[in-house]
Amino acid sequence: MARSQLTADDYIRGIRAGNRVMLGRAITLVESARPEHQALAQAVIADLLSTAGGPKTALRVAITGAPGVGKSTFIEALGMQLVEQGKRVAVLAIDPTSSVSKGSILGDKTRMERLAATEQAFIRPSPSGDSLGGVARKTRETILLVEAAGYETVLIETVGVGQSEIAVHRMTDVFVLLLLPGAGDELQGIKRGIVEMADILAVNKADGNRAGLAHQTLAHYLNATHLLPAKASGWTPRVLACSAQDSTGIAAIWTAVLDCQQHALQNGYFQENRCRQAQYWLQEALESGLRSAFFENPRVKAQLAALEPEVLSGRLSPFAAAETILGSFLPAKDTPR
Amino acid sequence: MARSQLTADDYIRGIRAGNRVMLGRAITLVESARPEHQALAQAVIADLLSTAGGPKTALRVAITGAPGVGKSTFIEALGMQLVEQGKRVAVLAIDPTSSVSKGSILGDKTRMERLAATEQAFIRPSPSGDSLGGVARKTRETILLVEAAGYETVLIETVGVGQSEIAVHRMTDVFVLLLLPGAGDELQGIKRGIVEMADILAVNKADGNRAGLAHQTLAHYLNATHLLPAKASGWTPRVLACSAQDSTGIAAIWTAVLDCQQHALQNGYFQENRCRQAQYWLQEALESGLRSAFFENPRVKAQLAALEPEVLSGRLSPFAAAETILGSFLPAKDTPR
Repeated sequence: MARSQLTADDYIRGIRAGNRVMLGRAITLVESARPEHQALAQAVIADLLSTAGGPKTALRVAITGAPGVGKSTFIEALGMQLVEQGKRVAVLAIDPTSSVSKGSILGDKTRMERLAATEQAFIRPSPSGDSLGGVARKTRETILLVEAAGYETVLIETVGVGQSEIAVHRMTDVFVLLLLPGAGDELQGIKRGIVEMADILAVNKADGNRAGLAHQTLAHYLNATHLLPAKASGWTPRVLACSAQDSTGIAAIWTAVLDCQQHALQNGYFQENRCRQAQYWLQEALESGLRSAFFENPRVKAQLAALEPEVLSGRLSPFAAAETILGSFLPAKDTPR
Repeated sequence: MARSQLTADDYIRGIRAGNRVMLGRAITLVESARPEHQALAQAVIADLLSTAGGPKTALRVAITGAPGVGKSTFIEALGMQLVEQGKRVAVLAIDPTSSVSKGSILGDKTRMERLAATEQAFIRPSPSGDSLGGVARKTRETILLVEAAGYETVLIETVGVGQSEIAVHRMTDVFVLLLLPGAGDELQGIKRGIVEMADILAVNKADGNRAGLAHQTLAHYLNATHLLPAKASGWTPRVLACSAQDSTGIAAIWTAVLDCQQHALQNGYFQENRCRQAQYWLQEALESGLRSAFFENPRVKAQLAALEPEVLSGRLSPFAAAETILGSFLPAKDTPR
């Protein structure tokens, strides 16, 4: 396959030139479990980040909400407006369930038919993976690639049921939560803590005979947000209504997103937050890498197999067993006795 | 100090003979941060566990509930009844807040005046520590010591506000949750998931003019427990009322505890659960030991200090930095390239 003969340089030049095919292939490398693909992906990313004057970067926006709230329709409506303003928009997703449900999010590109057909938009379904950590990491690296390819706005969609929102919150600048008219947090299937993350709350489906209910919901959340603890960014969450289907209220939501970004840029929170996020991902990568190296080490495996039965039977303390196993793995010079 | 000249053998013989002073000193070793104390503590525990015919073991019971529910009074009433039946009872605690509040739990032994004065009871306040993990580990090891000293019943008290209940659930056989008359879960300050852990729910303070309210609360929880998902043990949680102050209803609660134990012994869950718990603590000890060895390693510290600024500025991917740092720590032979 021609693909496997591409060098890091081919990818780098292609992505810098905004070549969508090369971008797509580089993302496939990021998503691959094969060590040689990983090495190539890391080389490409390292080069793209090390440009003079610092790497290109985009505004990273989380779009979340419970299933059925209309996330795809919303992203299509928003994406088309941004494209019409001459922006280049990338749409990514984090859906740790997609390996089971075979790509419930963005898998079916027909849900974003117009946007998918637009040259200035790049849509990529959620990577698959058996753990949220793995899926999230791939999306985090993909952000770097689409930014290097010149997309100024990255929209990241999630399934809206908890853990993936925490992950997306750790890689975005602005967090938009879509709400259904009528139902309360719990009924919408929104897990605790998600509303607290939101910078913008948007009651979708404010159209037809649901408009009245949507405005009641708006009023409810307007009251509720006053009760929430103040955000670290100093930003006061905005509550708005829209209809993704009719494409109304979308521009106002985008204005709120840009206001939120401006607010954070001005008070320094934007950069602070990006630093904290980078630090989080570094810590995460160190800990998960350390764990895999340890538990996949042949000596550790052998000792664990030998000592675990003793621990399970109560004849050996778990802590004593742990000390022995750690001793066989850790570099001797680092564990003076 | 004479204490520091004691050998592992002195501790082992003392504990086996049920010497309370030696037991207390051994627990102090377990709680100590000094490496030589830790080594001695591990040697003592290893020997005590490796007795022919398997180590002595006790029934381990969690006693939890929100502050003000009367845990100390309850433990004193229950402990005195057990002592009167000729049992030896150890009372431990897990309170990760105690280093801040200077021993809110059991710190003041006068709260269990009669029990503390009894030769057959051994009361030990919560170890202090800056992390719940550290505090919990010390309590987990202390259980092994009090069991080796011949205490047949170990009661472990917690503060009732969340994380420490999860820890205590992972080291006990039966979980007793004390409730106040009247207030619902949320009002009692009981975190989600705690009620689901309980094998026995006991509405305390069913005395004087609170008796009526206590019985209403009893009826409420009787209904509520039917709605809870079935327990893995197959045990149906029992809901009872008691007055720790008047020492009424305590015997019935203890009967329920013993029934729960019998149920689990008969269907094999008791041993299964102990195995799973030992496995959990082994995993926990491995992961936390690995993390400390890594983050305290001088090369790791140096590389982290050098690369972190690059990551924070966005010029280096967190994942690439992690790979470099991990490479400098992990044994070369385990990371073929």
